[in-house]
Amino acid sequence: MEFKTPSPAEKQSGLAPGTVVYTGDKTLSDLYIEVFDYDKDTCEEKELDRIEEAFTYSDTEPVTWINMNGLNHIKAIETIGEQYKLHPLILEDIANTQQRPKIDEYENYLFVVLKMLYFDKEENLSIEHISFVLGRNYVISFQEADGDVFDGVRNRIRTGKGRLRTSGADYLLYALMDAVVDNYFNLIEAMGDKIEELEDDLFEEKPNDDITYDIQSLKKEILKIRRAVFPLREVVNRIEKSDHPLIVEKTQFYLRDLYDHIVQVSENIEIYRDMIWGLMDMYMTTISNKMNEVMKVLTIMASIFIPLTFLAGIYGMNFENMPELKSRYGYYVLWVVMIMVFFGLLYYFKRKKWL
Amino acid sequence: MEFKTPSPAEKQSGLAPGTVVYTGDKTLSDLYIEVFDYDKDTCEEKELDRIEEAFTYSDTEPVTWINMNGLNHIKAIETIGEQYKLHPLILEDIANTQQRPKIDEYENYLFVVLKMLYFDKEENLSIEHISFVLGRNYVISFQEADGDVFDGVRNRIRTGKGRLRTSGADYLLYALMDAVVDNYFNLIEAMGDKIEELEDDLFEEKPNDDITYDIQSLKKEILKIRRAVFPLREVVNRIEKSDHPLIVEKTQFYLRDLYDHIVQVSENIEIYRDMIWGLMDMYMTTISNKMNEVMKVLTIMASIFIPLTFLAGIYGMNFENMPELKSRYGYYVLWVVMIMVFFGLLYYFKRKKWL
Amino acid sequence: MEFKTPSPAEKQSGLAPGTVVYTGDKTLSDLYIEVFDYDKDTCEEKELDRIEEAFTYSDTEPVTWINMNGLNHIKAIETIGEQYKLHPLILEDIANTQQRPKIDEYENYLFVVLKMLYFDKEENLSIEHISFVLGRNYVISFQEADGDVFDGVRNRIRTGKGRLRTSGADYLLYALMDAVVDNYFNLIEAMGDKIEELEDDLFEEKPNDDITYDIQSLKKEILKIRRAVFPLREVVNRIEKSDHPLIVEKTQFYLRDLYDHIVQVSENIEIYRDMIWGLMDMYMTTISNKMNEVMKVLTIMASIFIPLTFLAGIYGMNFENMPELKSRYGYYVLWVVMIMVFFGLLYYFKRKKWL
Amino acid sequence: MEFKTPSPAEKQSGLAPGTVVYTGDKTLSDLYIEVFDYDKDTCEEKELDRIEEAFTYSDTEPVTWINMNGLNHIKAIETIGEQYKLHPLILEDIANTQQRPKIDEYENYLFVVLKMLYFDKEENLSIEHISFVLGRNYVISFQEADGDVFDGVRNRIRTGKGRLRTSGADYLLYALMDAVVDNYFNLIEAMGDKIEELEDDLFEEKPNDDITYDIQSLKKEILKIRRAVFPLREVVNRIEKSDHPLIVEKTQFYLRDLYDHIVQVSENIEIYRDMIWGLMDMYMTTISNKMNEVMKVLTIMASIFIPLTFLAGIYGMNFENMPELKSRYGYYVLWVVMIMVFFGLLYYFKRKKWL
Amino acid sequence: MEFKTPSPAEKQSGLAPGTVVYTGDKTLSDLYIEVFDYDKDTCEEKELDRIEEAFTYSDTEPVTWINMNGLNHIKAIETIGEQYKLHPLILEDIANTQQRPKIDEYENYLFVVLKMLYFDKEENLSIEHISFVLGRNYVISFQEADGDVFDGVRNRIRTGKGRLRTSGADYLLYALMDAVVDNYFNLIEAMGDKIEELEDDLFEEKPNDDITYDIQSLKKEILKIRRAVFPLREVVNRIEKSDHPLIVEKTQFYLRDLYDHIVQVSENIEIYRDMIWGLMDMYMTTISNKMNEVMKVLTIMASIFIPLTFLAGIYGMNFENMPELKSRYGYYVLWVVMIMVFFGLLYYFKRKKWL
Repeated sequence: MEFKTPSPAEKQSGLAPGTVVYTGDKTLSDLYIEVFDYDKDTCEEKELDRIEEAFTYSDTEPVTWINMNGLNHIKAIETIGEQYKLHPLILEDIANTQQRPKIDEYENYLFVVLKMLYFDKEENLSIEHISFVLGRNYVISFQEADGDVFDGVRNRIRTGKGRLRTSGADYLLYALMDAVVDNYFNLIEAMGDKIEELEDDLFEEKPNDDITYDIQSLKKEILKIRRAVFPLREVVNRIEKSDHPLIVEKTQFYLRDLYDHIVQVSENIEIYRDMIWGLMDMYMTTISNKMNEVMKVLTIMASIFIPLTFLAGIYGMNFENMPELKSRYGYYVLWVVMIMVFFGLLYYFKRKKWL
Repeated sequence: MEFKTPSPAEKQSGLAPGTVVYTGDKTLSDLYIEVFDYDKDTCEEKELDRIEEAFTYSDTEPVTWINMNGLNHIKAIETIGEQYKLHPLILEDIANTQQRPKIDEYENYLFVVLKMLYFDKEENLSIEHISFVLGRNYVISFQEADGDVFDGVRNRIRTGKGRLRTSGADYLLYALMDAVVDNYFNLIEAMGDKIEELEDDLFEEKPNDDITYDIQSLKKEILKIRRAVFPLREVVNRIEKSDHPLIVEKTQFYLRDLYDHIVQVSENIEIYRDMIWGLMDMYMTTISNKMNEVMKVLTIMASIFIPLTFLAGIYGMNFENMPELKSRYGYYVLWVVMIMVFFGLLYYFKRKKWL
Repeated sequence: MEFKTPSPAEKQSGLAPGTVVYTGDKTLSDLYIEVFDYDKDTCEEKELDRIEEAFTYSDTEPVTWINMNGLNHIKAIETIGEQYKLHPLILEDIANTQQRPKIDEYENYLFVVLKMLYFDKEENLSIEHISFVLGRNYVISFQEADGDVFDGVRNRIRTGKGRLRTSGADYLLYALMDAVVDNYFNLIEAMGDKIEELEDDLFEEKPNDDITYDIQSLKKEILKIRRAVFPLREVVNRIEKSDHPLIVEKTQFYLRDLYDHIVQVSENIEIYRDMIWGLMDMYMTTISNKMNEVMKVLTIMASIFIPLTFLAGIYGMNFENMPELKSRYGYYVLWVVMIMVFFGLLYYFKRKKWL
Repeated sequence: MEFKTPSPAEKQSGLAPGTVVYTGDKTLSDLYIEVFDYDKDTCEEKELDRIEEAFTYSDTEPVTWINMNGLNHIKAIETIGEQYKLHPLILEDIANTQQRPKIDEYENYLFVVLKMLYFDKEENLSIEHISFVLGRNYVISFQEADGDVFDGVRNRIRTGKGRLRTSGADYLLYALMDAVVDNYFNLIEAMGDKIEELEDDLFEEKPNDDITYDIQSLKKEILKIRRAVFPLREVVNRIEKSDHPLIVEKTQFYLRDLYDHIVQVSENIEIYRDMIWGLMDMYMTTISNKMNEVMKVLTIMASIFIPLTFLAGIYGMNFENMPELKSRYGYYVLWVVMIMVFFGLLYYFKRKKWL
Repeated sequence: MEFKTPSPAEKQSGLAPGTVVYTGDKTLSDLYIEVFDYDKDTCEEKELDRIEEAFTYSDTEPVTWINMNGLNHIKAIETIGEQYKLHPLILEDIANTQQRPKIDEYENYLFVVLKMLYFDKEENLSIEHISFVLGRNYVISFQEADGDVFDGVRNRIRTGKGRLRTSGADYLLYALMDAVVDNYFNLIEAMGDKIEELEDDLFEEKPNDDITYDIQSLKKEILKIRRAVFPLREVVNRIEKSDHPLIVEKTQFYLRDLYDHIVQVSENIEIYRDMIWGLMDMYMTTISNKMNEVMKVLTIMASIFIPLTFLAGIYGMNFENMPELKSRYGYYVLWVVMIMVFFGLLYYFKRKKWL
């Protein structure tokens, strides 16, 4: 149950603003840098492990995508910051995984923060911090770990399919953000599956004590997803609406489309949120229904046998003067009475629809 | 319990933006195209199965309505896109059933997406994706399957009733959207009937375990309907407010009326939503009331017979020195005592209003 | 339980916009028309049954109020429409009882829709559809049935009290709307009484199974009232703010006052809504409290007599070697023990505050 | 349980707008008028019982405060109205206790309505209607009864402490409103005490049936307070923002401060509202916990003694051939078995933590 | 349970606006003043106990930070007010701990109020009132007690790390506010830990009666935190957006970053709020589940032994003519029957999954 975020607050509090500190927990021992340098006709792809080698590419005219993996390599981030003259607060935000999605517009570059969401192998929600710097003819992306959702973009760069190779760096930024958002749909689907599973468990009346806990976990996950996705609407809206010279008009159509997708994801999140909150109510009625059933069994058993036992008790008394005991058929008559009481009560409960 | 939308996310994720992929599940083996070409005096109606044949009509001066059924025929959509110079993102949205209702204004055409809602034969909510392209003298509509709610419009075109034949393509678009929204009222009524049915079930105290499930299903349906209808307010409002040259002033009165209707539907949806959420509470009190009744029966039976059985137990003891046992009327006296206890307790429960 | 609105959707769906169809259920066999024609000095009052006779009055200079009752007389509405050149959509809205409160501003007239609310004899909420057309020197009102809340206005016209006779048609419109809104206060009070009654029932612990149903009914009523009243705020606000030449400045003060009243009604509705939703919780605790009481009786009875019965059972055994049975005072000693157990348990429950 | 407001609606409905009717229930047999006439140097204080005597003061240059008590003296209100040329709707609002807090700006005066709140001796919430008219050099205040919260203001006028004597009529209006708002803090505190008391009752497990009722009463009170306080934010904000010549710039600082205080009160109200709604949940869990305890006692008693009674029953049977009965130590062996069963079950419940 | 704020309202109500009254409860017997006077090259640090000694520093060109501890020293606050010509309402707000976070812009200075939050040693939430006055080259801070979160800032001033020594007084104000907000993250983490602890308690099924109380306490704490933090968003936003000459453009970047942090804290608060509200539901299901378990034990025990006891009762009767009693193996046959009933019922409950 690790909802809190223990280290980050401690790691950062008391430091001067602009100090670059990695607040996440996905430390990557080796820095891993990927560079794509392409235009309509050519496409170069490199893997580097020193950041300085990447700088030559972004000076050239073709579009350059520098993808840096491993936010714990503070030094590299600072080197990039110097090279591209990034504001110290931006460097802090690149490494600060607690930073919520946002966009900062500077004169020569745009800075975008967002979150990559996926369920890891243990079905736990994992949130990865990604930032982008968009310059005149380059995009630099910063990731925590080296697995990502950008393979589609990589393929389109390599093969030249779609508009990617013929468009500028702003379209590349759009394509990368689009890949992240597209992946939200997968996440949302997985969330839907989890909810349905719980609903089925509740419906098939096999609720275990863990269900309360599972529902509470789902609540946390949907709240975390919400926090990661909702600010993105504002971010994309602002990029689209901004008249920053780095965003050309043609790309704005695509950004509007991206905005639409985020709204769709958000609507689904709200619906799932309502569903999850409803699960607790469903669970309560399920418990109450089961209790009802338990009580009925008890009531039927007790109500039938307690009067019968009383009757048997009567004739177990030792009064000297009890004529029935001496009667020849007393015992048999009593049996008849008892069987009548038994079926009478059975009929009564039947009519009450308890059986 | 099929709330999730499994395929769409997989079908699309990783593809270049603007790629046309049908994400729905209503595949229509044959493409089916309907063309109406009319003005004040003439009206031509054709059924085609190749999209190219339709293009000749829309060049002529009269208003042309091209109604294409079968979004799985990607090729046809792309052909239309080329012919009318539609933006690739529009083609993607035509086929993407996950697209929420929206309006996109382009210089030469308007693009509108909305949802047709109905309960199918199994009483399940079915959502069909419809898009419209409004050009200078044509409307192209794209539907998933070939059943629709446009028969009223067709008749008005054929018979020339109403303003349809004497108005432009913008009024045709309005008429088609109006038909879709009119049908929402039917849907909302059916929803109201379902809610009442459940209420009656709860009231007549015949709640089964499925009720929890039924309520949860209703919740999902109303949430889906909400998602399909609410964005439409914004869409119609924007068409009405826009000063796009394709929308003439006379039509704006009608669009305002349409907007009113959507607001009415939305208000009803909100009310039904409140009602449905209230059902769960009603169910809980129903369960609790039944439990109360069960417990009362148990308590009355047990409270009456347990003391009596105790009394019988006393005189079933085998002490040698128990004077009552030898007394001549002991047995009869005990019966009197027991009957008094019996009626005393009965009176007690009567006064407590448990009987 | 008639929450749905079955006929309207069916009556209208598929028709051309602007078609006049009465969607309500209060058919009035005879058309009934009332005309007031007044200025500072004179006041004429007529009852007509043909609409054409009314037209002469509105041409004259004094203010004319034409009050038409019976929306099922479609023909008459259409005649009025022709005479005053009303837009077809307005005629549709006059007869369409599903139309929510609204205001439409046209060049030569204002069109206002609102709802008259009252509890009928069976204490059911009844909603009546009223529309007003305000022209240069006339007001035409359209009602479903012929009972209304305008007697105060009629008297003020006849007697010349207040500003009515000395003001224009816009003040008459205000006075009529004010009469409708004033009546909302009566409705709200009746609603408050109903809520209190239910609260008292719950408090006096005489909850029957119908209470769940009563609360659900109240919920529906308050939601309906809300839907009828809330849009009116916007309507009156827009009349007041509009600079339509038909509304003179002096009347705007009164409209602002009217707006204030509607806000007051709305606030009361919101409070009652919260109260009604709270009733369900109150009911749940009432049920639970009663269950607690039932369980306590059972537990006390069972806990006291089960151990005693066990003791009696012991000495009812037939072992040959049971020394107590032969002891002279065994029986009496056992009684002492039993009485001690009895009072011991009684004391225990007393201390637990169950008695 | 007097939540409704029976008389007001009846008193007013059907009357012409602008008719002055007192709708409250605090009738004061004698009209009581207080006049303060002061400037930097002088301060005159009078008590009058005829309103006309007050008019001479407000014509003089010094600031005049006319404080009228007893809204049932309609005639006096109308006389003031004539003297100061107040709009008839204002007179109506002065006497109409149903009027919510508001501000009306006229050319020559400002009209402000607010509510004085306090708990009376029976701890019931009492709401008193106060209105202010601010003119060039006078403030007229209208109160229902003659107890109020203005003693601080009176003292400051008499002693000349603070800025009051050196400032204009607008500062006096501010000072009076500030006194009313300051008193809200006392009210809010008393509310907090009531909530805590209920919480303690719930915690000390002495819940009686009245608690449901007490919580419902608190809900009503907080809703009423909310309705009286929340509109005031808007009122004060509008006075501060308005550029009415009667409000000098220096006073605006103070009005902003007043606005801050109202926001503080509002925030507290919202918090208490959340707390009160939470009480019902607390109560439900308290009831459920007690039920659990009751059930445990029953279950332990029944589960322990029912098997033992069964054992005793076995050896109370009269079969001729039951070897145990003849065994010499049978009885003692059975006791040992019973004691073992007894402690075994005790241990079982102990391990389940029910004991 | 000290949620109310008893003294403040009483302390202040009835006083003239602008009267300086300390409304908190953290009285510091000795006034304690700290002064930092620094520029790029020099840094002087002093501790004073008379406020007048501090005034010399703020006249000099370097930036001066005067940190005053002990709001109960009203006299000192008033002396500062005279020296720096602060508005009386500001002095009131400095000492009034009930004042919510706010910003007031005056011509020559900015006035900011915020709240320092921490959990004290007894894990109770403590709220400390802090205000700042920003002048041309000085910042004056006012604290209740002398422990604070500014050690990081002090160190940066002393060591000259970061931009602090090279920037103006506006950056110092930012740095101090940033320190306060940074500390909120620690608080939020501690809150998260508390929630998790409660969740674990609930999950490990060791709920005690105090849990209701603990949850209610958490609710209050989160509501208090909310009230202290939420207005800060508006405050920082307004400082950033204002074009007050005291805020230079470079500092605005940092203020935007601060704003981001506050939004992050706010989002976390909302999430924790949802979580805490969910705890009550979790608790209810936990209680219900336990009740279910208790009921099952009772039902199983009673349902098994009550029929067996009945059987034993039958053969304990004393009828003379009961053939079974005389049968040689009657007793053994009965045992077999009883064991079969026993296992039959056991199997029944097993199949119902109650065991």
